[in-house]
Amino acid sequence: MTAAIHPVLIAGAWRPARAAVGSFKAVNPATGEAIEASYPISSPAEVEDAVLAGKSAAPAMAGLPPEATADFLETYASAIEGRVDELVRMAHLETGLALEPRLRSVELPRTVFQLRQAAAAVRDRSWRRATIDTKADIRSIFGPLGGPVVVFGPNNFPFAYNSIAGTDFASALAAGNPVIAKAHPCHPGTTRLFAETAFAALRSSGLPAAAVQLLYHMAPEDGLALVGHPALGASAFTGSRPGGLRLKEAADKAGKPIYLEMSSVNPVFILPGALAERGEAIASEMFGSCIMGAGQFCTKPGLIVVPAGVDGEAFIERLRLAFASAPSQILLARSVLDGIRSGLEAMTGAGARILAGGHPPAEPGFRFPGTLLRVSGERFLERPYALQQEAFGPVSLCVTASPAVPYEAIASALEGNLTASVFSHSGEGDEALYQTLAPILRTRCGRLLNDKVPTGVAVSPAMVHGGPFPATGHPGFTAVGFPAAMIRFAALHGYDHVRPDRLPPELRKANPTGRMMRFVDGEWTNR
Amino acid sequence: MTAAIHPVLIAGAWRPARAAVGSFKAVNPATGEAIEASYPISSPAEVEDAVLAGKSAAPAMAGLPPEATADFLETYASAIEGRVDELVRMAHLETGLALEPRLRSVELPRTVFQLRQAAAAVRDRSWRRATIDTKADIRSIFGPLGGPVVVFGPNNFPFAYNSIAGTDFASALAAGNPVIAKAHPCHPGTTRLFAETAFAALRSSGLPAAAVQLLYHMAPEDGLALVGHPALGASAFTGSRPGGLRLKEAADKAGKPIYLEMSSVNPVFILPGALAERGEAIASEMFGSCIMGAGQFCTKPGLIVVPAGVDGEAFIERLRLAFASAPSQILLARSVLDGIRSGLEAMTGAGARILAGGHPPAEPGFRFPGTLLRVSGERFLERPYALQQEAFGPVSLCVTASPAVPYEAIASALEGNLTASVFSHSGEGDEALYQTLAPILRTRCGRLLNDKVPTGVAVSPAMVHGGPFPATGHPGFTAVGFPAAMIRFAALHGYDHVRPDRLPPELRKANPTGRMMRFVDGEWTNR
Repeated sequence: MTAAIHPVLIAGAWRPARAAVGSFKAVNPATGEAIEASYPISSPAEVEDAVLAGKSAAPAMAGLPPEATADFLETYASAIEGRVDELVRMAHLETGLALEPRLRSVELPRTVFQLRQAAAAVRDRSWRRATIDTKADIRSIFGPLGGPVVVFGPNNFPFAYNSIAGTDFASALAAGNPVIAKAHPCHPGTTRLFAETAFAALRSSGLPAAAVQLLYHMAPEDGLALVGHPALGASAFTGSRPGGLRLKEAADKAGKPIYLEMSSVNPVFILPGALAERGEAIASEMFGSCIMGAGQFCTKPGLIVVPAGVDGEAFIERLRLAFASAPSQILLARSVLDGIRSGLEAMTGAGARILAGGHPPAEPGFRFPGTLLRVSGERFLERPYALQQEAFGPVSLCVTASPAVPYEAIASALEGNLTASVFSHSGEGDEALYQTLAPILRTRCGRLLNDKVPTGVAVSPAMVHGGPFPATGHPGFTAVGFPAAMIRFAALHGYDHVRPDRLPPELRKANPTGRMMRFVDGEWTNR
Repeated sequence: MTAAIHPVLIAGAWRPARAAVGSFKAVNPATGEAIEASYPISSPAEVEDAVLAGKSAAPAMAGLPPEATADFLETYASAIEGRVDELVRMAHLETGLALEPRLRSVELPRTVFQLRQAAAAVRDRSWRRATIDTKADIRSIFGPLGGPVVVFGPNNFPFAYNSIAGTDFASALAAGNPVIAKAHPCHPGTTRLFAETAFAALRSSGLPAAAVQLLYHMAPEDGLALVGHPALGASAFTGSRPGGLRLKEAADKAGKPIYLEMSSVNPVFILPGALAERGEAIASEMFGSCIMGAGQFCTKPGLIVVPAGVDGEAFIERLRLAFASAPSQILLARSVLDGIRSGLEAMTGAGARILAGGHPPAEPGFRFPGTLLRVSGERFLERPYALQQEAFGPVSLCVTASPAVPYEAIASALEGNLTASVFSHSGEGDEALYQTLAPILRTRCGRLLNDKVPTGVAVSPAMVHGGPFPATGHPGFTAVGFPAAMIRFAALHGYDHVRPDRLPPELRKANPTGRMMRFVDGEWTNR
């Protein structure tokens, strides 16, 4: 006898999966055992239903006052806070992430904060960049895309990047688009709890019933068809590079925008003066950043560049001791373990040497020890691609710079990353080197840091969680921070000689909020 | 004996083409005869030279004060005004476009205006959207891409969209990127005059010598390699849909941003009340818009929807008379003539009937008469793709709406366009229909017009010259209007805990201009 399969949320109703092509269960990564609840793998027909329902909901959403969307986001945020115990228990079971502080005190508050930030941006309306030329009688404004946005959530943030509660969800919805959430199969139960909560909030809002939909899973080829569907507005994906590139190709071919966060080794350059001044403190901070959340952060320092010589060796040795003494980490899923194995294979095959860890323990579940590798700068330049492959998990590679292979050469061999960090002497000691290195790193990362590890992505209007390909698909956007993240899911709408009473309120003469910022006849004004 | 082949502008010098794979001459479209000047088809090695020189120039440009770029753009604009006679003579010879008013009094003034608008935006700096979070100590700002931008100019605007003087050139350079111009082979002489002028202005500026480079032509496969080159920042293309799609595929595969303007039929919906009220005036205005510049505008009305019945028939008949009585138009090139032929074949094959024109005259050069077609709404819905194929030139198709095939059904069958226009009764006569139709058109165009033909693209900050695929490659951008057009060629740069004296001036505490608009701690401020 098989247990009932959970229904999907389509077109404003929880309904049994239609012609599901299969079902799946989440796995407790601490034990490796399946969790007793089955979720459907949706059929192409069901995916089509969701897209068409989302498409039908798009005009109704576009016609709503922004307050309706903001109210929904805020109601939803508060309702999430009413289910914290249930959510953190389920997420802990499905992901192995720590209940405290991670899930309850860090990630859940961040998630509701994001929803509220998005709501505030919706109410403020300045994000739409209303531009008015009264003399030419033309106007422009950001508006919704005209079709639903599909959000593919990642495995590593069951709350803050959840397909139906996280930053992409909040951004796409706040920009006025219906959202089709595609759960990550590692945490369907967590996603279901969010979806139930979202749907209850939705029913008391003025939003159309299909504004938020949920599919748990689908065959890879159906995902490719989905991101290229003619009725789609756009899609967002956070996950592995191979998966992201396949989706990108399908979406690009159809001319549909897709926003991807795919991979990053987040290089850290520790300059000689910093090392001499505070090497021990940096090593300790670096280890914490590498091992936090079992290294399963998009911004984990995967590549640490230190100078060859006594100070560099002492730093590497400190890091090695820390890695070697840490307990094995629970990973999110078997696929993470597999990814680490193939990443390590690529790195050691290219000449990197394992200093600590490197082999999974003989324990139940999916676990891996903190693993530190090293390689010379010379070798790195010979095999730069193999050696900057992301090993998603508690794995980091030290690279030694030298007069023959200076920091700049290593920086120049980097691909696009989410972040790049430079630790330098607190005085002028490393300034000349910094001034050479920073312009190179500037072209290879979204966020440039000084004297700070890259983990910890503040939800701020100034945050850049983006970067050049292949870290993302486009260097001009951020996935975190409101209102900037919303722009990804907006179309630029021009109005030429359109009659005043037919214009969106934001483009009429009177400022609709009395304070939204607009660009009127060449001047920024909030009147 | 062959005439000398013009040199290319690479890495700060005019130099003979290196291992050119061939040469070509422009053709006078009024006579069909070649113009006596030869231009090189660059080799892959020469393309590589340009990319690498551009890449080397990128950091120097990124480090310059904005005033250097603004000075260059303004010096260049003034120098163009010093060569007006030469430029309009050459452009007239190469394109067949009228000396007056088109080239001298419209397009050239627009071109220098664009350069000056770009310069003003560079000086103002607000376009960079400096965002500061003092509490979290993080900041973001738009900055250059880190590599050169390739601009492929179109055939139809030898000045205003010229690869080395037009809106894409100005936008990419103003955003701080070196530009590699790829001339349109229809007007190499015009492009050479601009390049000479630009290079002279460049030498008196503080910009690096490779900030502006020029290639005249290259093999198609070398163009594909170019837009995917790892050292490239981005590329911009204005031209045909097949050419654009090939470039898009190559750029997408390499993860390089590409901005495309590919095709648009610019649908015009004439509602019954407007027709009854002022059908004759609209017909006259519409004919002018269809025939202007021999219909070789991106925003030419290619699809005109009128109601079936007496008023609609009278309108079509007025338009037919106007088309039939107009002289044959000189086209830009043989390729335009070929494109018209294949467009007409597709349309008539799908059931459209030619009412006027349709065959080239027995005259020298490349000419075509104003050509009007008609088709029923029923037929249009049966073959919507064949019937909304852009026939670039003086060709327009009338579609009749009816109770069985209402305006909304026709609108729903449209692909993405640059513009969509609705003519409605000056009172309330057509309001209900407008309110049904406009939301559909809103998702299918960049610029929505009321009671106005779509030709005539004002250079204004509020202009949207963009739209959904396949009109362009991304619905969130505009190719015309400063500063908005510049954003296409910018990367979003984050700074996290970066020391104050290492920050770009725009992100430091003091406002560098005393008036640039910034978003500081949640407030827009110009202090």
